[in-house]
Amino acid sequence: MIYFDNAASTVIVPEVIDVMNECHAGLYGNPSAIHTSGRKARVVIEQSRRSIASLLHASPSEVIFTSGGTEANNAVLWSCCKDLHKKDFISSRLEHPSVIRTLEALVKYFDIRVHYVQHDPIGHICLDHLEELLQGIPGTVVSLMHANNEVGNLLPVKDVSGLCKKYGALFHSDTVQTIGKYDIDMSKLSFDFAVGSAHKFHGPKGAGFLYVRNGIPFEPFITGGGQERNMRAGTENISGIAGMAKALELAVESMEENRLYIEGLKVFLIASLKEAIPDIRFNGDAEQHSLYSIINILLPERADHDMLVPRFDMAGICLSSGSACSSGSSVGSHVLKALGRAPEDPSVRVSLSRFNTVEEVKRLVEVIKSMCG
Amino acid sequence: MIYFDNAASTVIVPEVIDVMNECHAGLYGNPSAIHTSGRKARVVIEQSRRSIASLLHASPSEVIFTSGGTEANNAVLWSCCKDLHKKDFISSRLEHPSVIRTLEALVKYFDIRVHYVQHDPIGHICLDHLEELLQGIPGTVVSLMHANNEVGNLLPVKDVSGLCKKYGALFHSDTVQTIGKYDIDMSKLSFDFAVGSAHKFHGPKGAGFLYVRNGIPFEPFITGGGQERNMRAGTENISGIAGMAKALELAVESMEENRLYIEGLKVFLIASLKEAIPDIRFNGDAEQHSLYSIINILLPERADHDMLVPRFDMAGICLSSGSACSSGSSVGSHVLKALGRAPEDPSVRVSLSRFNTVEEVKRLVEVIKSMCG
Repeated sequence: MIYFDNAASTVIVPEVIDVMNECHAGLYGNPSAIHTSGRKARVVIEQSRRSIASLLHASPSEVIFTSGGTEANNAVLWSCCKDLHKKDFISSRLEHPSVIRTLEALVKYFDIRVHYVQHDPIGHICLDHLEELLQGIPGTVVSLMHANNEVGNLLPVKDVSGLCKKYGALFHSDTVQTIGKYDIDMSKLSFDFAVGSAHKFHGPKGAGFLYVRNGIPFEPFITGGGQERNMRAGTENISGIAGMAKALELAVESMEENRLYIEGLKVFLIASLKEAIPDIRFNGDAEQHSLYSIINILLPERADHDMLVPRFDMAGICLSSGSACSSGSSVGSHVLKALGRAPEDPSVRVSLSRFNTVEEVKRLVEVIKSMCG
Repeated sequence: MIYFDNAASTVIVPEVIDVMNECHAGLYGNPSAIHTSGRKARVVIEQSRRSIASLLHASPSEVIFTSGGTEANNAVLWSCCKDLHKKDFISSRLEHPSVIRTLEALVKYFDIRVHYVQHDPIGHICLDHLEELLQGIPGTVVSLMHANNEVGNLLPVKDVSGLCKKYGALFHSDTVQTIGKYDIDMSKLSFDFAVGSAHKFHGPKGAGFLYVRNGIPFEPFITGGGQERNMRAGTENISGIAGMAKALELAVESMEENRLYIEGLKVFLIASLKEAIPDIRFNGDAEQHSLYSIINILLPERADHDMLVPRFDMAGICLSSGSACSSGSSVGSHVLKALGRAPEDPSVRVSLSRFNTVEEVKRLVEVIKSMCG
């Protein structure tokens, strides 16, 4: 089985499982309890927080543990509505469902408006239109993802955060796909809110975090306990948190090495595909401002789109046609639709990790070639 | 180290850790993905759901996985406000913070009223007052916990659910302390919403579930993905879910045996304390309608309340003075306050599990006796 669906979820590395098992074996006390067993658990949580904060060049008080990226995105958008009383949100049609669907839900409950910034044909945000929107609407929240989870396009974060600062907007970015893949320096990049999910960087499912810049009067989404300094109630998932910290440490430690390796696979995949199938195309900006681990391939029309993912699966290759979070739906990818693709266009997302090999990429090219035969 | 804080959190049993490790080793696909790796993960989630539903005599479609009990309680109360448009809630001053604090938060955002049902001096809900409230206010939501997490008092669930049915109220019960300890039969007990948390029954932290009776138009709290049949967005914590199902299977399998054993320890503890310290008292209803694993002890006044939990800790005994979820606060227990205790009264909660022994109970009695010397 060849696994090319790393943007959906990744294999947990053994070092992370070891850390989780240490927690399971020894840390059963409730971290809010003041006895020895509770304090031992508390220490691990705070060490994990300090480690993650340090890797992001943030302060530990800026890191709030959650059950994952989706909860963290929900928490940001709900708090902006209910506590910061924001009335206008600027987002795009290319965001993850946890942002798009949540904004759609919030419109039902609060007197808010969502403004969608235009994007160019390959899915890059139009900065001129963003500035126009920001100029016209004071005090907005901008929610734009760092790397698109379906096509990989990278947001020009410095430009966007500069515009947000200039016009007094808060900047929320779903950074789920880029945490652990780039050097995210919170002291330099002006995110007000950012989001991480452990299972995207070889950590466990069910653990994530929310970065909230110090000074923002964020209020909790889940209430009813003093955990996370009153910012997220509920007994902490200690093994998940410690596993996530370990996974991020490992990812950052070998980040440059991983980047070069995965980027190499991506370049090789694109070149091999172009050679094997001259009329192959790519969705989004595959070759320039793009996350090095994602390639969204548009097969020629002669490659039947019907049962495309299952056919790859039968050939022993796991990949996806869009985001896992929306793959239950039958309407096709909202991202590819926004980029002008029809549901019947044969598109597949290949997302790589450091555990993929050149041999696997060669096999993928063979399989794709046979489908276009 | 003697661990008497099982109402706060419990040790994970090895069989559960094994199940979690099987998931970590083999199930890294995103359960929403349609390829083999995703479908393998999906199967484990749905098997876990069927197992938990069956143990509760519920339908699988009534079980929604969450990150824990606190999220589940939040989800119920938020949905009742924002989607079911409920205006009146009946609850008590003795509820868990995830209910009390969340209701207090909801009052800020919605035009709702919270009515507190009276309780008697030992903390039992006054059914007459509940009926009076229900009579006066049509279409309410009643939120009363099954067993109080601090003093152990049990709610007469059949009486309360009968009243809720009679007056057309929805019945939400925080059942976190009783799931796995009693035969909770959803087909007979008329809960509309109930809640479970794995780490209360020797499962992992970070996994819980929400029971929603079929037919109630519940809407999700966390949005942005089709997971949990659109009822809870976010990639599922597979190992936590599978571990929770295993833990509940084990708990239910030996429920009667565990109950007899733990109840025996409780009876022995109470008798030994009464013999050793004739003026010992108990908070709540320690000996009759009470959860068999919780005893809240009121030491005589001569036992200095100052640093009480740390002094037990130094004697090698982990216990707590109230709920872990509020132990960060300096205001003392809201439950004991509602029962007329002053913050300086020397009270401690002892909460037992099947892993405690008679020897440990004897040691506890010795330590308490020395404090009352």
